[in-house]
Amino acid sequence: MTATRTDRGPRSRDAILQAASDLCREQGYAAVTMEAIATRARVGKPTLYRWWPSKGAVFLDVVLDKLVEPAIELPDTGDMVRDLRTWIRGFADLFTDPHARQLLVGLLGAAQTDTELATVLREKVQRPLQAGNRQRIIAAQDAGELPAMDPTLLEELLISPPWYRLLVSGEPVTREYADQLVDAVLSVRPQRPTAAPPQK
Amino acid sequence: MTATRTDRGPRSRDAILQAASDLCREQGYAAVTMEAIATRARVGKPTLYRWWPSKGAVFLDVVLDKLVEPAIELPDTGDMVRDLRTWIRGFADLFTDPHARQLLVGLLGAAQTDTELATVLREKVQRPLQAGNRQRIIAAQDAGELPAMDPTLLEELLISPPWYRLLVSGEPVTREYADQLVDAVLSVRPQRPTAAPPQK
Repeated sequence: MTATRTDRGPRSRDAILQAASDLCREQGYAAVTMEAIATRARVGKPTLYRWWPSKGAVFLDVVLDKLVEPAIELPDTGDMVRDLRTWIRGFADLFTDPHARQLLVGLLGAAQTDTELATVLREKVQRPLQAGNRQRIIAAQDAGELPAMDPTLLEELLISPPWYRLLVSGEPVTREYADQLVDAVLSVRPQRPTAAPPQK
Repeated sequence: MTATRTDRGPRSRDAILQAASDLCREQGYAAVTMEAIATRARVGKPTLYRWWPSKGAVFLDVVLDKLVEPAIELPDTGDMVRDLRTWIRGFADLFTDPHARQLLVGLLGAAQTDTELATVLREKVQRPLQAGNRQRIIAAQDAGELPAMDPTLLEELLISPPWYRLLVSGEPVTREYADQLVDAVLSVRPQRPTAAPPQK
C-alpha cells in the first residue's frame, strides 16, 4: 500500500514525486529505478522504501497528484451532455500528452503483473471515480438526458475506447475522436430499456 | 522481431512455446525467466535468444499459436449480428479463462514499456485482425445490418469494454456482459450518419 500524506514531511514527498516524474520524462518509465529516484530527490533508499514498496507505487502517487484529479473527473456544469464531451476530450488531451502517456502506460503496464499495485490503482483511483460518475449518470438518465441502459456499461462505452487505444492499439486519441465517440454513445436507443423510457 | 516458423525445427519451437505456457500456468507470467524456459524446453539459452529477443516475444508466439486464431477472429456464418455475439462471447470466454488471462495481461503489460514488442503485437495481431473485420463491418453496414457509423469506431465500441475490464478495472467479462454490450452497440442510431442510411 502507498503511504498517506501525513506519514512524511510534505517537502520530501513532493521532492520524491517530482524526481520520479522528471526521471520518467528524461529516460522513459522502464529505465527509472528506485535508486535513481532516491538520488535525485536527495533521500536515502531506505526512506524511499519505507514509504513506497515499489517503483509502481511511487508512480501511482505521481499520477494521482499530477494527472488524475484535474483530468479524469467528470465535470459538473449542470449540462450533462456538455460535461461528457469535456470529460472525454480530457482523456484525449491526457492520452496525447507525451509525458502523461509515458506515466500512464508505465503504471498500467506494471499493474498487469503487480497485484498489489493493481489493487491500489483500482481502489484509490478507478472505483471511487466510477462510483461518483455512476450517481451522475443515473440522475441524468432519470432526467432523460442520457440513454436508459446499464449505467456502468454506459460509462464503459465512453471511456474504454480511449483506454483501448492507449494500451492496445496505440492509435492516437484526438479530440475529434472523443467527440465522435460521445455522439455515438449518446445515440444508443435501447431496444429493451433497463429503466422506464423518459417522456418528452 | 520474432522469427518465422521456417527459421527452426517445428519440434523445438513447439517445445519452447509449450514450456513457456506451462511455466506461466505454474508460476505466473512475472516469475517466468528466459533461463527457465530454455531449461524446461531442453534447449540452450543462446538458441532461445537467437529466435526470440525477449520473454515478451516468446509469449507473443504462445498467444498467437494457442489463443488468438481460434478465439479473437470474427466468425463468418452469413448472419452478422449472430457473428458479433459469438465473437464478443469469445472475448468473454478468453478473458475468463485463468491461463489465457494470465498470458494476455503479462504480454500486454510487457508491451507497455517494450516498444519493439508493442510494434510486433500491433503489426502481427491487432492490425491484421482489424483490417479483416473492417471489411466485414462495412459490407454489413452497406446491407443495413449494422448502424451506419465509422467502422473503426463501431469495432472499438464492441471490443474496448472487454479489454478495459481486463487491463484497467479488473471486472469480470461474462457472456451476459458480452450480450449486453453487443445489444447496446447494435442499437446506436446515428444522428448524422457517416454513410447513407439503409433503406428497408
